Amino acid sequence: MKPVSPLAPAAFPVLPPIKGAEFAAVEAGVRYQNRKDVMLVRLAPGTAMAGVFTRSSTRSGCVRDCQAKLALKPAADAGAAIIVNSGNSNAFTGKVGDAAVAAVTGAVAEALGVPASRVFSSSTGVIGEPLPHERITAKVPDLVAALTEDAVEMAAQAIMTTDTFPKGAAATVQGEGGTIHIAGIAKGSGMIAPDMATMLVYIFTDAKISQANLQKILSRNVDATFNSITVDSDTSTSDTLLVAATGQSEAAEVKGTVAKAFETALAGVMRDLALQVVRDGEGATKLVEVRVTGAASDEDAAKVAFSIANSPLVKTAVAGQDPNWGRIVAAVGKSGAQADRDLLTIRFGDILVAEKGWRNPDYQEEQGANYMLGQELLFHVDLGLGKSKRSVWTCDLTSRYIEINADYRS
Amino acid sequence: MKPVSPLAPAAFPVLPPIKGAEFAAVEAGVRYQNRKDVMLVRLAPGTAMAGVFTRSSTRSGCVRDCQAKLALKPAADAGAAIIVNSGNSNAFTGKVGDAAVAAVTGAVAEALGVPASRVFSSSTGVIGEPLPHERITAKVPDLVAALTEDAVEMAAQAIMTTDTFPKGAAATVQGEGGTIHIAGIAKGSGMIAPDMATMLVYIFTDAKISQANLQKILSRNVDATFNSITVDSDTSTSDTLLVAATGQSEAAEVKGTVAKAFETALAGVMRDLALQVVRDGEGATKLVEVRVTGAASDEDAAKVAFSIANSPLVKTAVAGQDPNWGRIVAAVGKSGAQADRDLLTIRFGDILVAEKGWRNPDYQEEQGANYMLGQELLFHVDLGLGKSKRSVWTCDLTSRYIEINADYRS
Repeated sequence: MKPVSPLAPAAFPVLPPIKGAEFAAVEAGVRYQNRKDVMLVRLAPGTAMAGVFTRSSTRSGCVRDCQAKLALKPAADAGAAIIVNSGNSNAFTGKVGDAAVAAVTGAVAEALGVPASRVFSSSTGVIGEPLPHERITAKVPDLVAALTEDAVEMAAQAIMTTDTFPKGAAATVQGEGGTIHIAGIAKGSGMIAPDMATMLVYIFTDAKISQANLQKILSRNVDATFNSITVDSDTSTSDTLLVAATGQSEAAEVKGTVAKAFETALAGVMRDLALQVVRDGEGATKLVEVRVTGAASDEDAAKVAFSIANSPLVKTAVAGQDPNWGRIVAAVGKSGAQADRDLLTIRFGDILVAEKGWRNPDYQEEQGANYMLGQELLFHVDLGLGKSKRSVWTCDLTSRYIEINADYRS
Repeated sequence: MKPVSPLAPAAFPVLPPIKGAEFAAVEAGVRYQNRKDVMLVRLAPGTAMAGVFTRSSTRSGCVRDCQAKLALKPAADAGAAIIVNSGNSNAFTGKVGDAAVAAVTGAVAEALGVPASRVFSSSTGVIGEPLPHERITAKVPDLVAALTEDAVEMAAQAIMTTDTFPKGAAATVQGEGGTIHIAGIAKGSGMIAPDMATMLVYIFTDAKISQANLQKILSRNVDATFNSITVDSDTSTSDTLLVAATGQSEAAEVKGTVAKAFETALAGVMRDLALQVVRDGEGATKLVEVRVTGAASDEDAAKVAFSIANSPLVKTAVAGQDPNWGRIVAAVGKSGAQADRDLLTIRFGDILVAEKGWRNPDYQEEQGANYMLGQELLFHVDLGLGKSKRSVWTCDLTSRYIEINADYRS
C-alpha cells in the first residue's frame, strides 16, 4: 500500500448524482492487477460536451481523437460516452495506437447505440507501449451492465496511477426553476508526469447549456485553474479535461445572472480539483501558493510565478523547511520578466522578508523558519512595476519524488 | 569530507604558467573556516580583458560592477586584477552591497597600484547576507605578498563552494614566433545554484590580442559551451566568465590562421571547463549529452535540447538507469518547438529506439537497460524537419541533490 499524501483531504467528498450521467468501473488487467482500471460514463441524449487538452506536439492518439470529435457538430439528440483506462497511455504508438482508439471507442458506440463520433476516450500510463485494447473491449458488456448514477467515486479510483487518493469536487447553482448540479473527478500526481499519463479531469453537470457556451466558459477558466498548477514542470502527452452537460436539471437554460453563478461554480470545482492534483504531487509534503503582483504585464506575472514554482532550488528549500528567500530572488532574476531589484518586495504569508533591494532590517530568520514549518505556504512577490498578477500552486521537491520517478518502470 | 563526484577527472590538470598572471589565495574566514576562501590574480600592464555574465535581472553588485568596468576604454599600459571570495555572494544586498564591492576593489587597486576601474571582483555563496568585506580587505596585504605564477590550483580551490573538486583546463597554440598558452579555472556544482553563487570561470592567456577581438571570440563561443550546460535549470545571480590576455607570449599578435587556432583552443578550454561543472553537478552520477538534430531552426533545436535536459522526469529516469524514452518524447512535445510525431527519431548512443511515430520493432528493452548502466550517455533526437542542431550537457537528478539543497543553509 502506498502511503496517502499528507496533504490529502480527509475523505472523498459527497458528489451529487447528475441526471443523465451514469458511471461504471471494472478490472480489465490493462497493466495493474487486482484493481479497477477502466471506467465508462454514459451521457444521455442532448448532452453538450466541451474540452481542453494538452498542447504537446507529441500528444496521444486519444487526445487527437477527442479534439477531432469535439470539432464536429453533433445531432441534437445524440448521446455520448467517455471511456478511460489507466496503466497505459497509448501515446507515441503511431498508427497502431490510432487503431486501438478506434477499436475501443467503436466497441462502446456499438454497445450503447451512440455514434462513434460521440465516444471520447483517454488512456493514462506508460508511453510507447502498445495498448492491449482487446482487454478493454472484452469488458465493455460488463461496464454497460454496471452503469449507475452512483458510481462516480469508483470511476475516480479506476483512473488513478501514482495517485495516492481519488479526487472529486462538487457545486450547486440555483437556476431558474430548479437546481443545477456540478460534479467532477480528476487524476494526477504530477500535473505533469508523462509516464503516468498525467492529468485527466471529467466534470459533469445537469445544466441546460449549448456546447458553444459550455466551451467558452470552460476555456475562460482554464488558465486560472489547471494552467496554474505545476508539480514538476513536465507537461504530459495526455492531459485531458472534458465537461459534459446533460441538460436534465429542472432549471431553465443557463443564461444571464445564472450563467455568471454557473461559471463561478464551475471555476470553483475546477480550482478545487486542480489543487487536489497538487496536493497529490509526487512526494509532496507542502502546498505552496506563489502569488505575483505588481507585474508590468500578464505575461510577466506568469513568467515570474512559474519561474519560482518550477525552481528546483526553491522547491528543495521548501522540502527542507529553509526560509531561503535568496532562491526566490534568483528565480525572479532568471524568469526573463521585467524586474528591478530595488522595487521588489518578498513576503512569506504576512511576513515582510525583503524590500528595496535588501533584506527587511526588522526581519528575523526565526520568523521565516517558523513560517516554513506550516503545511500550506504563501510566497508573495510584488514586482512594484504595474498591476498584473498571477497565482500558481506547486508543492515541494522531496527525495520521494526521485524514488517514485527513478523506479517507476523497474 | 564531502565525497568527490564519481564523474571527476583523475587529477587536477597541469596548467602552464601564463606570463603576466600571478595568483594567490588566503583564508579570510568570510564564511568557511579552515580553508582558503579568497583568491587574487594580478595581471601585467597591457592585459586585455573580456567577459560574459549572467543575464539575470537580479544579478549581483559584483556582476554589475564588472560589466560597467569592461565597458570603459582602459589606458594601454594599465594593469588589472581579479579578486574573488567564496561563502557569500553579496547578491540582493542593495547599496550596502555596492559599497562592499567598492571597498574590496578599492583596497586591491591601492595595494597593486592599478586603477580601481581595472579591478574586477566576484563573490559566491549565500544570497542576501551582507558581505563582511573588512575580512577580505584585511587580507589584501597577505594576498599581494603571496602572488606567484604557480598558484593557479590553489586559486581554483579557494573559489569552491559545494564543488567536490577544483576545475582547470589548458591549451597551447603555435603562434608566429612563439607559443601561446591558455589556462582556465572554474567553479560550479550547479551551473545554476543561486545559494552557492554558482558558476565562476577565469581564463588566462599570454596571447597578444586586442580587448575587442578577445571579446568577440569569447562571445562567439559562449553559446556552444557554458550556455549549453544545465544542472538544474536555475540561473544564478552571479555567473561570471572573465578572460585575461597578458600579451606576454613571444608570439606575434593573434591574427589570420593563428586567430582561428587560438579560437579553437580557447573554445576547447571553455568546453572542457563547462563539462567539468556538469561532472560536479550536485548529486550527479551520470553525464548526459542531449543532441538534437534535424530541427527547423536553431531556436527550436535549443528549445528541444533544454526541454529534455531540464526535465525532472528524464533526469530521474537517468538516475534510476531506466531507459524510459517515453519521457524524452514527452519533453519534445512540451518544448514548444515544431515537431512531428511521425518524423521523430530517438537513439540511445547508436541504438535506434524509436522512429516513425512508434518504437523501433527491433529494439529490445534490455539493450536500452544495458546502455543506461554507462556513466556517460548520449540521447540523440532527430526531428526530421530541417538542418539545425544543438547539443547540451546535463547530469542526472538524484536524492543527493535534494539533500544538498534542502539542507544547504541549515
